[in-house]
Amino acid sequence: MAMYIVSRRLAGGSAAPAQLVGALRYAAYLRSYSTAFREERDTFGPILVPSDRLWGAQTQRSLQNFEIGGERERMPEPIIRAFGILKKCAAKVNMDYGLDPNIGKAIMQAAQEVAEGKLNDHFPLVIWQTGSGTQSNMNANEVIANRAAEILGHKRGEKFVHPNDHVNRSQSSNDTFPTVMHIAAAMEINLRLVPNLKTLHTTLHSKSVEFKDIVKIGRTHTQDATPLTLGQEFSGYTTQVKYGIDRVSGTLPRMYQLAQGGTAVGTGLNTKKGFDVKIAAAVADETSLPFLTAENKFEALAAHDAFVETSGALNTVAVSLMKIANDIRLLGSGPRCGLGELILPENEPGSSIMPGKVNPTQCEALTMVCAQVMGNHVAVSVGGSNGHFELNVFKPMIASGLLQSLRLLGDASASFEKNCVRGIQANRERIAKLLHESLMLVTSLNPKIGYDNAAAVAKTAHKEGTTLKDAALKLGVLTSEEFDNLVVPEKMIGPSD
Amino acid sequence: MAMYIVSRRLAGGSAAPAQLVGALRYAAYLRSYSTAFREERDTFGPILVPSDRLWGAQTQRSLQNFEIGGERERMPEPIIRAFGILKKCAAKVNMDYGLDPNIGKAIMQAAQEVAEGKLNDHFPLVIWQTGSGTQSNMNANEVIANRAAEILGHKRGEKFVHPNDHVNRSQSSNDTFPTVMHIAAAMEINLRLVPNLKTLHTTLHSKSVEFKDIVKIGRTHTQDATPLTLGQEFSGYTTQVKYGIDRVSGTLPRMYQLAQGGTAVGTGLNTKKGFDVKIAAAVADETSLPFLTAENKFEALAAHDAFVETSGALNTVAVSLMKIANDIRLLGSGPRCGLGELILPENEPGSSIMPGKVNPTQCEALTMVCAQVMGNHVAVSVGGSNGHFELNVFKPMIASGLLQSLRLLGDASASFEKNCVRGIQANRERIAKLLHESLMLVTSLNPKIGYDNAAAVAKTAHKEGTTLKDAALKLGVLTSEEFDNLVVPEKMIGPSD
Amino acid sequence: MAMYIVSRRLAGGSAAPAQLVGALRYAAYLRSYSTAFREERDTFGPILVPSDRLWGAQTQRSLQNFEIGGERERMPEPIIRAFGILKKCAAKVNMDYGLDPNIGKAIMQAAQEVAEGKLNDHFPLVIWQTGSGTQSNMNANEVIANRAAEILGHKRGEKFVHPNDHVNRSQSSNDTFPTVMHIAAAMEINLRLVPNLKTLHTTLHSKSVEFKDIVKIGRTHTQDATPLTLGQEFSGYTTQVKYGIDRVSGTLPRMYQLAQGGTAVGTGLNTKKGFDVKIAAAVADETSLPFLTAENKFEALAAHDAFVETSGALNTVAVSLMKIANDIRLLGSGPRCGLGELILPENEPGSSIMPGKVNPTQCEALTMVCAQVMGNHVAVSVGGSNGHFELNVFKPMIASGLLQSLRLLGDASASFEKNCVRGIQANRERIAKLLHESLMLVTSLNPKIGYDNAAAVAKTAHKEGTTLKDAALKLGVLTSEEFDNLVVPEKMIGPSD
Amino acid sequence: MAMYIVSRRLAGGSAAPAQLVGALRYAAYLRSYSTAFREERDTFGPILVPSDRLWGAQTQRSLQNFEIGGERERMPEPIIRAFGILKKCAAKVNMDYGLDPNIGKAIMQAAQEVAEGKLNDHFPLVIWQTGSGTQSNMNANEVIANRAAEILGHKRGEKFVHPNDHVNRSQSSNDTFPTVMHIAAAMEINLRLVPNLKTLHTTLHSKSVEFKDIVKIGRTHTQDATPLTLGQEFSGYTTQVKYGIDRVSGTLPRMYQLAQGGTAVGTGLNTKKGFDVKIAAAVADETSLPFLTAENKFEALAAHDAFVETSGALNTVAVSLMKIANDIRLLGSGPRCGLGELILPENEPGSSIMPGKVNPTQCEALTMVCAQVMGNHVAVSVGGSNGHFELNVFKPMIASGLLQSLRLLGDASASFEKNCVRGIQANRERIAKLLHESLMLVTSLNPKIGYDNAAAVAKTAHKEGTTLKDAALKLGVLTSEEFDNLVVPEKMIGPSD
Repeated sequence: MAMYIVSRRLAGGSAAPAQLVGALRYAAYLRSYSTAFREERDTFGPILVPSDRLWGAQTQRSLQNFEIGGERERMPEPIIRAFGILKKCAAKVNMDYGLDPNIGKAIMQAAQEVAEGKLNDHFPLVIWQTGSGTQSNMNANEVIANRAAEILGHKRGEKFVHPNDHVNRSQSSNDTFPTVMHIAAAMEINLRLVPNLKTLHTTLHSKSVEFKDIVKIGRTHTQDATPLTLGQEFSGYTTQVKYGIDRVSGTLPRMYQLAQGGTAVGTGLNTKKGFDVKIAAAVADETSLPFLTAENKFEALAAHDAFVETSGALNTVAVSLMKIANDIRLLGSGPRCGLGELILPENEPGSSIMPGKVNPTQCEALTMVCAQVMGNHVAVSVGGSNGHFELNVFKPMIASGLLQSLRLLGDASASFEKNCVRGIQANRERIAKLLHESLMLVTSLNPKIGYDNAAAVAKTAHKEGTTLKDAALKLGVLTSEEFDNLVVPEKMIGPSD
Repeated sequence: MAMYIVSRRLAGGSAAPAQLVGALRYAAYLRSYSTAFREERDTFGPILVPSDRLWGAQTQRSLQNFEIGGERERMPEPIIRAFGILKKCAAKVNMDYGLDPNIGKAIMQAAQEVAEGKLNDHFPLVIWQTGSGTQSNMNANEVIANRAAEILGHKRGEKFVHPNDHVNRSQSSNDTFPTVMHIAAAMEINLRLVPNLKTLHTTLHSKSVEFKDIVKIGRTHTQDATPLTLGQEFSGYTTQVKYGIDRVSGTLPRMYQLAQGGTAVGTGLNTKKGFDVKIAAAVADETSLPFLTAENKFEALAAHDAFVETSGALNTVAVSLMKIANDIRLLGSGPRCGLGELILPENEPGSSIMPGKVNPTQCEALTMVCAQVMGNHVAVSVGGSNGHFELNVFKPMIASGLLQSLRLLGDASASFEKNCVRGIQANRERIAKLLHESLMLVTSLNPKIGYDNAAAVAKTAHKEGTTLKDAALKLGVLTSEEFDNLVVPEKMIGPSD
Repeated sequence: MAMYIVSRRLAGGSAAPAQLVGALRYAAYLRSYSTAFREERDTFGPILVPSDRLWGAQTQRSLQNFEIGGERERMPEPIIRAFGILKKCAAKVNMDYGLDPNIGKAIMQAAQEVAEGKLNDHFPLVIWQTGSGTQSNMNANEVIANRAAEILGHKRGEKFVHPNDHVNRSQSSNDTFPTVMHIAAAMEINLRLVPNLKTLHTTLHSKSVEFKDIVKIGRTHTQDATPLTLGQEFSGYTTQVKYGIDRVSGTLPRMYQLAQGGTAVGTGLNTKKGFDVKIAAAVADETSLPFLTAENKFEALAAHDAFVETSGALNTVAVSLMKIANDIRLLGSGPRCGLGELILPENEPGSSIMPGKVNPTQCEALTMVCAQVMGNHVAVSVGGSNGHFELNVFKPMIASGLLQSLRLLGDASASFEKNCVRGIQANRERIAKLLHESLMLVTSLNPKIGYDNAAAVAKTAHKEGTTLKDAALKLGVLTSEEFDNLVVPEKMIGPSD
Repeated sequence: MAMYIVSRRLAGGSAAPAQLVGALRYAAYLRSYSTAFREERDTFGPILVPSDRLWGAQTQRSLQNFEIGGERERMPEPIIRAFGILKKCAAKVNMDYGLDPNIGKAIMQAAQEVAEGKLNDHFPLVIWQTGSGTQSNMNANEVIANRAAEILGHKRGEKFVHPNDHVNRSQSSNDTFPTVMHIAAAMEINLRLVPNLKTLHTTLHSKSVEFKDIVKIGRTHTQDATPLTLGQEFSGYTTQVKYGIDRVSGTLPRMYQLAQGGTAVGTGLNTKKGFDVKIAAAVADETSLPFLTAENKFEALAAHDAFVETSGALNTVAVSLMKIANDIRLLGSGPRCGLGELILPENEPGSSIMPGKVNPTQCEALTMVCAQVMGNHVAVSVGGSNGHFELNVFKPMIASGLLQSLRLLGDASASFEKNCVRGIQANRERIAKLLHESLMLVTSLNPKIGYDNAAAVAKTAHKEGTTLKDAALKLGVLTSEEFDNLVVPEKMIGPSD
């Protein structure tokens, strides 16, 4: 009887064990950091914080109030980094409005470290917290304040640099969190997803060119149909990915709009006129992306339609990639008892004894990602539809859903391109065999021997399991030479003059 | 330039044309019924109603206030019929509590006509109305009151039988609508979906038996794998459908709970003690289904978890049927260039010239239904999650979503069974050919010639495109007789002793 | 014991009753049309068709093979009308390529009747048929051929005008059906949804202006927050709708691409060069919408990403409207025990005795529509992800899902605008009362009396249930005049200079 | 210009930089572990593995082939632990069938360490890999083999204990992975979700009892309605959670079915008869849960309907909890300008200056979780619908989706119970005030003064903004005493005798 049974006994009882478990967990948690603690405080009073961590009282409180999902569910890194960017820009702009330059510069330096991911270990909070992301905003404020204080030679916890008065100056969680959502998403789109989709597009296009002369049987309703070239088939995939890039890019104008400057309810109370425009410009400068201040701050806080919209574009990309990956694995099925028209690269042992069993594992990883993106899209949509009054409070979930979709689609597209598409070869022999066995080519005989004779040829071939040519010769409707002149799949792959 | 352009011009302008269009529509609507009208009235005052219709003022008002979707979007018929059943039962129970028996009996007779679908034309309201379904409850009350009055020799519109005081006595829209939702769904489950799934299960099972000795190549990752029998393959489908029936049936205990007796907010104000139990018993008696009064009326009005739950069961059935139909169409793909292991019945011309192109149209209809059921499930879930306080006001949408899913799944299962599964034949020749060409059978050689030699045989066959036997003989590791004794797919379809 | 019990007995048995039910249904169906039938035939042989209907053998066969969902589930009217447009244009272009002008003109006339909806009764097929929509294409061909023949003085059924050779000339179901999908959707977007969203936008904007001076309490986390104007609050809604229009419009470039000319697999086999461009031009001319031939016909047949994309835009609009409608009903809640800031128009009796109980029924209809649109989006996405090889065979479901969403969103937006938003009034008295009772205004005191004193004022007011002013005076930190000078909500609705 | 810009430049280029990035990443990855490597090998040849890790060649290969999502996306821990349980049981049963007891016992000991989570760091693979989970099965085999070898005094990498021949004996990835999916889910349901839902149920029930005498205004359509007790309102929530537990528990019979023994395609090839039953018994014994061997192994490999089903139950629970949490935050809205009927516990600073602004953060975390569960359900359903032939290859995604939903719902229910529900207090004063201001109580006057007079009273009160009593006295229809005798909300909370 093992440890997991013990934990069941603890968890299965009344409320008391739950508390006990909580206490044990907290104790374990305290041990897991260090033996030393310092005291931090907020309006709720003092609280112990691990000495080797930069966060403060509000972060610590959130850690204890939201034991949901564990480390795996931490706020996504792109959000943390975007906080670094935003807080750096805010300090810069705030210096224009009177923030002490010493403090301002220290904040900028600390924030830069956050932007570079150097302080990731100081952001322990999970997604499943306050729906405004307030606690992650405070986490950023606290970490940056403590780090900036240290830069200036002060101790953490002393609030020489104040998380609210200095780092969060002229800001509110209600406008910072949507701002970092937009920064993080726009960066992931521009730096990860779109480049990877472009690479995939390029490779699919080059395959389309490579395969442009390979005539193969078409399939509709999964049944044999008239021929096309393998290049034409891949041109369809290429077009899907091309439009996918257009779709994602088409959502950027609204993603580039930043809520910053709206403060608590969108009015901009406690900021100065022009702050919103300046900070958007600073973020644009910092990221080299064309961010602007949101046209309407009320919409920018109370709704996240821009995220729902982009998620919809990703959903379409997922639908496209699901189709492409499904086709590729089915066209590559075999080696003997499937369609076998494509030879997929072999990246890992498929079967220890059976050569040729190449499992389409990249297609599998990609289609799983597509399903998850489709699911995240529903989660994001449900969250987006549930805003109330001046604030949508599904922010962290919406952010994490979209960011996971962006990351997974971006990474999986790259992996699929590199480990699968790039190495796809046509099984020309198999393709030719299937094409010439097909009965669909009979349609070329119509003009010469008439519909009825052509149908008779096809029926005979189908019934007797022979080729069309055999059947035509047997029925005596054509000579071998005539047949070869008429049945030319290469002439069936486009409209006539 | 055609009429639809004209309508664009009308619709594309400012608010004024919209009103104009509205007025024109109303005029057209009035014409479409009859030239005669009578006046009906409610607390809002008088309103004209077509003379040949039994509905009253509130129905008429709803018609004009909710021009959403048109006739296609009318309240589903099972809801109308369930109103007939409920109002009949209510009259019966109300007579126990003092309702004038003359009036009570007339209501019962009129309600029976509604239950039988005879008065469907008098229920014009769309789903997209009040979220409590109040207007459809009033539609039922008005139609039954007018019809009952006529039965008693009075004129419609005179309220000799009163829609509220008599037909709706001791009831509220807030408890009648959830009650008819449950009645309608339970009947569709019992009379349509489950019987049709059972028939499908029976036919799949009989196919599993019919195909029990046909050994075929297995496929994992869409790649060739070790063999199994076609009967084993169909036994998987059979089990999926069997569990599907269990899943749907498992939701019935909560579907059989009726809200009736909760009235406006679940307290039962304005009913008598015991009314709830008696009316559930009456409905049970009327329908021969084991309805009971809901254990908690507050839950029964404020949430529709029972519908979300059943919708989840239908979602699982849809997922199962999607898998089954996909397999069947892929196994039936061809006739020459696909897998071709199954021969599907040909129900309509697939291709005018090409014999053997049998499009798997029943699979296509069924999988489209499955996708719609998966979508409706999300709609029902979103609606279910959005109740506020004492009343969920997504009732008509939730009802129509589930009822459409029930109807479509039930009908499509029947169509699929009758027009596809029942007639499936195994293409034994093709199955045998693929099986014996396969390289996967090499695994049987291991015990005799060792792993390394077996792998060499497979590699040779794969490389040279020959059979395993050819390769084995060529490599000289086995005699022909030894090979035939060892490679027996029939011995590979189960665990060893 | 009523009729529905009988039907259960029939349905609940073995396969035999199912057949019996089928036979009875067919008999009933035959009766329901007329007593007269004529014989039509296709490659499957002869079949009886009701004399008073224009359809032919393939339509009739489909009717019998797909008894799924009944009349309610017929192919949406916009698809039927689009077939009329397409077939008219095809005849026109085919005359350029040699189609007999007599026949061509008759086809154009007959097709025009279909485009105008005059022959709707001759399109009985349901959505749940072949996944390519082949049978609806044949339905259009058969009806138009028979009608054109009649126009030319011939009898229906004689094929003087041939459904395939004349009406379907140079076409395939595989390119016509996606073409009508795009025509229908583009028209619904341009003629219904966008105009109605524009009207809603205009009205919301005018409300935003009307309410621009009404300062009210803000709410974040559903809790009291700093003030804003009611006009600002409505400006958020206005922006959401504005962006919604942009989102939907942004999908049109891909919706305007027509598959026509791709024929069976996208290659254009059996058409002439240039046919695709000419027919797109003809459709553009006919509809006054900028249709173009699809850049890649393989993508246009094998995938319906354009529909998934537009459905994603509708999903975003639904999410926006859900938020707006939820806010409006909560702000209008009451009359006494809710927020009560808005007075909604009263369109129907809410409660027979309680004045002021105005149920937000338009919000309810709209939010139900939004949930359905979110669900349809999943159905469309699942269908879109499941294409195989050269053809996606979820076409009718994808078409019907998107068209239902377009229709419902368009109609519900119009109804919401006309019957709700237009008549919304601000309850100025209530708004002012809540604003002045709020404790959030205390933040204005900070600069004058300091944070600690301000907090003390708020705490006192909260504890004693008094106003801030009472508390401030009681604590002696301010005079009445000072308080009135400082606490001016009108100064809290924007950034400071 | 910061580091993230650099990475953009790298990522944004052609295929070459992508390779470069890959190489750099691999180098960085190698550095991140240690400077020492050992060589491991599989049928693909040799590969370097970090010396301090127990995994082998196949794990290493997967790490490099599937760079998707990073550490955050690792296979969920419950799956890893379940592999420990399964491999321990397999070794135990395999000893019955002839596995060397020395090796068997060492495997059991090593597997126990995996089951206890002690070797989590040796399971680096992500979810987005082969869709059969093969690589995670191999990861488990490799880690356990190397650890067992060490226990027996041999070096890692020498294969004294062989990952395939010993650890994976009689097993295939195709049956082990579904088996661990079921073990992991069943344990999470029994040890986390259900106990936490039960605690939540208990607390809601105790609140229902605590509040049983507090009469309050009801709300339907968000509008004032007839009264009920706060206890009745909470009894609805209690029932929802109770049924939720039933719904989840009702899916267990199919979750307890284990695929083990089906091997590659469900036939059980390469196992011994009885192996399946014995291993299910061993797992049952090890976990104290009633696992059984699956009735049909073909279904158990090719479909994951059991996961779709359970996910559907979680979706229903999410819908219920969304409703409950929404109600609670709206009922607790305020402190001054909302409904204010509930006082929620204050767990963290809501506003630094405004007392009483208690943000309902636990409701927010919970509702975000509910939205994610609804989204995961779609992902799981899409994955479940896409199985092909003998194997569903969306296994890791399906597993991770359901396990995330289980974890989040379980944790969030506990957090919500502990940090919110348990501390909810009724604001009795506010509740009484709203109740007595309400106009809905007028219905009690009907029997005494008649409908018309009662309506006049309500209209007067509404128009003049007074209480019903004031209006009644003003209109002279009742004395003060009569009014007080008649209007007794406490009598309006149930049916009459």
